[in-house]
Amino acid sequence: MHGPVGYVADKDELLKRLRRAEGQVRGIQRMVEDDTYCIDVLTQVSAATKALESVALALLDDHLAHCVAEASAEGGPVAEEKLREASAAIARLVR
Amino acid sequence: MHGPVGYVADKDELLKRLRRAEGQVRGIQRMVEDDTYCIDVLTQVSAATKALESVALALLDDHLAHCVAEASAEGGPVAEEKLREASAAIARLVR
Amino acid sequence: MHGPVGYVADKDELLKRLRRAEGQVRGIQRMVEDDTYCIDVLTQVSAATKALESVALALLDDHLAHCVAEASAEGGPVAEEKLREASAAIARLVR
Amino acid sequence: MHGPVGYVADKDELLKRLRRAEGQVRGIQRMVEDDTYCIDVLTQVSAATKALESVALALLDDHLAHCVAEASAEGGPVAEEKLREASAAIARLVR
Repeated sequence: MHGPVGYVADKDELLKRLRRAEGQVRGIQRMVEDDTYCIDVLTQVSAATKALESVALALLDDHLAHCVAEASAEGGPVAEEKLREASAAIARLVR
Repeated sequence: MHGPVGYVADKDELLKRLRRAEGQVRGIQRMVEDDTYCIDVLTQVSAATKALESVALALLDDHLAHCVAEASAEGGPVAEEKLREASAAIARLVR
Repeated sequence: MHGPVGYVADKDELLKRLRRAEGQVRGIQRMVEDDTYCIDVLTQVSAATKALESVALALLDDHLAHCVAEASAEGGPVAEEKLREASAAIARLVR
Repeated sequence: MHGPVGYVADKDELLKRLRRAEGQVRGIQRMVEDDTYCIDVLTQVSAATKALESVALALLDDHLAHCVAEASAEGGPVAEEKLREASAAIARLVR
């Protein structure tokens, strides 16, 4: 179990960005169906990837600022576990 | 104008992967709506980002193997322009 | 001013990895001087880049586990500033 | 065996950039030895990583413009092999 999620205050903003990313991915499908020039499709795929990366960074910010900060304030094994988890998530983003 | 796009033979496969990526992004929206734990949302965002990166690499492969290869065979300023375009697209993917 | 740096316990290990990365970059210079095949040079550049990324992730882990965790335990504007700093550093790594 | 490497005309520029990257990595070692604040070390690691990525993109440009273009002009299994190689190198850079 866990308390309120870190992104609770940014939920609407996150959902708006995710819906926009979904729209971008659907737009790329139409481009492929219409035989759009490869480079133009690639530009849109890069844009959608960057949009998802921004969502990930926003989620991570909220997570560090709430879940990790709270756990750190308490200390002990839970704090360590939260830090390990956050580090693994950052590594997945970077690689 | 340009001839048949480089990915013409892989169109169905590309569309399948894009629809899967779209489904992943929609799944992430549901996770956010349901207050899923930040780290679990992040894992899915990383997976969707990787899926889009794979689509980009597949598009780039096809583009190099068809559009760039053909232009190179002809040589001249069109070949140079194609290479510049491909390099810029690769740089956008890497950064 | 700041207290002991987060990586104080991992200093020897970090220095060892940085010296190895330096050796890799020097090796790449020799490869270029010897006209080594482009793809083989590229493979080594990718390896050196990954080595530096691992150093960055290790530094970030230590920073979160020490500097950020301590500041979070105290709370207030210093904690917020530390989180902002860490988020910006993570964004620089990802993009 | 292979002909003249793709980067032959840019060799001096590549070596200059690699020496600068080597200097950056040595500078990071001094920062760690001097207990420089984690975030400042991280900023330099990101800069060195970006410098190596630029070297990689420059190498790849030269490779596409020379080795791959030449092989494409000839066609056949060598051209296919060059494209496969280039695609794999791009994928290593992106991931």
